Amino acid sequence: MPNFQTVRGMRDLLAEEAATLNFIIGKARETARVYGYKEVITPVVEPYELLSAKSGDEIRQRMFIFKDLGDRAVALRPEFTASIARLATTALKTEPKPLRVFSVGSVYRYDEPQRGRYREFWQANFELLGSSNPEADAEAILLTNSVIKATGLQSYAFKIGHIGIIRGILNHAKVADKVQNAVLQRMDKQEYDKAFKLIEQENCRTKLQGLLDLRGDEPFETAEKIREYVAGYAEAEAAADNLLEILRLVTESGCPVRAVEPAFARGLEYYTGVIFEVNVPELDIALGGGGRYDKLIEVFGGEPTPAVGVAHGLDRISLALQTQKNELPVQRGKTAVVIFVKPDLKVDALKIAQLLRESGVPVEFEVMGRKMGKALEDADRRQADYAVIVGERELKEESVVVKDLAKREQSTVKISELPDKIR
Amino acid sequence: MPNFQTVRGMRDLLAEEAATLNFIIGKARETARVYGYKEVITPVVEPYELLSAKSGDEIRQRMFIFKDLGDRAVALRPEFTASIARLATTALKTEPKPLRVFSVGSVYRYDEPQRGRYREFWQANFELLGSSNPEADAEAILLTNSVIKATGLQSYAFKIGHIGIIRGILNHAKVADKVQNAVLQRMDKQEYDKAFKLIEQENCRTKLQGLLDLRGDEPFETAEKIREYVAGYAEAEAAADNLLEILRLVTESGCPVRAVEPAFARGLEYYTGVIFEVNVPELDIALGGGGRYDKLIEVFGGEPTPAVGVAHGLDRISLALQTQKNELPVQRGKTAVVIFVKPDLKVDALKIAQLLRESGVPVEFEVMGRKMGKALEDADRRQADYAVIVGERELKEESVVVKDLAKREQSTVKISELPDKIR
Repeated sequence: MPNFQTVRGMRDLLAEEAATLNFIIGKARETARVYGYKEVITPVVEPYELLSAKSGDEIRQRMFIFKDLGDRAVALRPEFTASIARLATTALKTEPKPLRVFSVGSVYRYDEPQRGRYREFWQANFELLGSSNPEADAEAILLTNSVIKATGLQSYAFKIGHIGIIRGILNHAKVADKVQNAVLQRMDKQEYDKAFKLIEQENCRTKLQGLLDLRGDEPFETAEKIREYVAGYAEAEAAADNLLEILRLVTESGCPVRAVEPAFARGLEYYTGVIFEVNVPELDIALGGGGRYDKLIEVFGGEPTPAVGVAHGLDRISLALQTQKNELPVQRGKTAVVIFVKPDLKVDALKIAQLLRESGVPVEFEVMGRKMGKALEDADRRQADYAVIVGERELKEESVVVKDLAKREQSTVKISELPDKIR
Repeated sequence: MPNFQTVRGMRDLLAEEAATLNFIIGKARETARVYGYKEVITPVVEPYELLSAKSGDEIRQRMFIFKDLGDRAVALRPEFTASIARLATTALKTEPKPLRVFSVGSVYRYDEPQRGRYREFWQANFELLGSSNPEADAEAILLTNSVIKATGLQSYAFKIGHIGIIRGILNHAKVADKVQNAVLQRMDKQEYDKAFKLIEQENCRTKLQGLLDLRGDEPFETAEKIREYVAGYAEAEAAADNLLEILRLVTESGCPVRAVEPAFARGLEYYTGVIFEVNVPELDIALGGGGRYDKLIEVFGGEPTPAVGVAHGLDRISLALQTQKNELPVQRGKTAVVIFVKPDLKVDALKIAQLLRESGVPVEFEVMGRKMGKALEDADRRQADYAVIVGERELKEESVVVKDLAKREQSTVKISELPDKIR
């Protein structure tokens, strides 16, 4: 007998969960449409070489890697960015900039499974290529706001930081890139002591440590304090100005920012500018996050291309909706079962079922050959709204019996009027 | 520099192709809804043990198999049926019958790539569990008809056969199951001579050979001829009656059947009853196919459960639409670009963009900091319908300039009236 478990960390999404995921995908796709992002569908399986090109060690070690029957190293995508970078340097190379690209699908990471973290999970991914302006960064945040808002989630808010400020301080002391990456990785894990120990230059260490203390309650206040704190560090100054401008653009457009986090770092090594996450109080993992990565396309051999992107964790948004007990605003519509009273009415009953379906009414056709009583019992269990009963006598009058299963009332209805009666 | 190829046999679907696939998925999902099929989302990666349980050798050899980091043998699903059978014997075990389940997603087979055949491809899958009645078989065919019809494809038609007729003749001569499977596999490849050579019993061989000659132009005529030809072979007789009834149910409901094929066999070893495919003249591969497999759920350790299912090849439907040059009936809607004339109008321009997006208008916001002329040129290249120009003077009057890019006309419009003006 086969193994009936799903693979560890992977799940079946049944009725409600599947509907919720599809609902969120619909909102992400609609957001992509109104922000002018074109959808692309890339393979789940990609050459290992492509996926490992930009990923840090950490993510590389968590990939599902294997050889195909042609002995080529391939892997399941751990995110979309590498595939989009490939497109940007090949098929979409000559498209006018800015280039806006949307994708949605499953991605794979060999993580320890826990609440909201799976080995197969779903992402919506937005990339805006070609602009280094703060309005591009703002767009990534605003469209994330649009997706989350459209799902009906309550009390979500953004956390914003800027890698350019941290790198600006590190560059000022000429800390080597490799050390910088290690520092950022530690900071992302909030292992600040370990992070600072990696920095040999004492002045720089103290400066970075001081940055952490600027954490405050009001985003603009924090951003202003950061700006003052890095005065004289030209690169960090520019980054702080950039952060302030992005903050202004998104808050003016109604985006809820909870905090500017001076020491916020996101794991992926390729970020170069603003970084952000969106959270709800009920979950300790982010619902989505992204930022600016101006050097990525070069890693893939393309022309220098400023870029900003964001990925939304659809399973986490689903979990948050469930935790907040949000009812999906899905209009269910009336449903029917169609039952025939004698086998030789089957063809007519089937035609009536088709008529209803063509008018958009969900119909479960009686395929079990059950007697009327049993069939009606089953219709109740399925919470159908109507039973359409096809009998000989009514059929001669081009009618059927319609039973309202909630009200327990029945009436005879002309077949031509049936769709309107039920909808 | 990384490898920029996609994995052999896998593809990027860009703008038009992605839109077409999503359009077809939408039609399949809508069909699932009106036929009462509940959507489930199962993992792409499944235990090898599960996927190999029911597959014939042929499909097993074409699976993407690998070990995860925990050294467990897993594989990419080559189709949906095994995952659905798992659900039917576990999470959905206690659901009332009939159970109608819909899935859509990518599946993986290590085939030689060719036109319409890829190593990653998309399927919509419908399973109806619990009924052995011909109206259940008819439903699988009818819903396939509904999907294909809804896509706008022309001159498609069904080919119908019945494994029960062939097995009935083989069983009559007590041909061993293993030999029967081998015979069906050869027949599926239309290697009839090789197939017949496997049958030791000469009477049986002649009978089966004779079945092939019954091929005719008119489906009912062929079905009637088959019925006469197998008179005295009780099992084959019942199968022929069953085929006639299904044929009647689907044709009466407007489903185009091109042929009843007496020697039609489909590769998968698990079919037990009616089998069918849908084709268009432009392609030599089926757009979808399925049939009855009454023993499958038992293979997965479940109670004996009659079942019928169908899978639609979405890439092939897409290719057929392209070959027939069908325009997708997608209402595109008017699109806009929003341009600000001075940097300090950025916040206001962004708010106007958000207003339009919230009313459903696709807006590309000017994020490149270009001068007006360049920005308008770019808007033309993107085939936007309108440019919304945010200037200081108009803004004071709570207005903007709207330029109709096709008509080359412009007018001043109140911001409050902007969404209605553009939609």
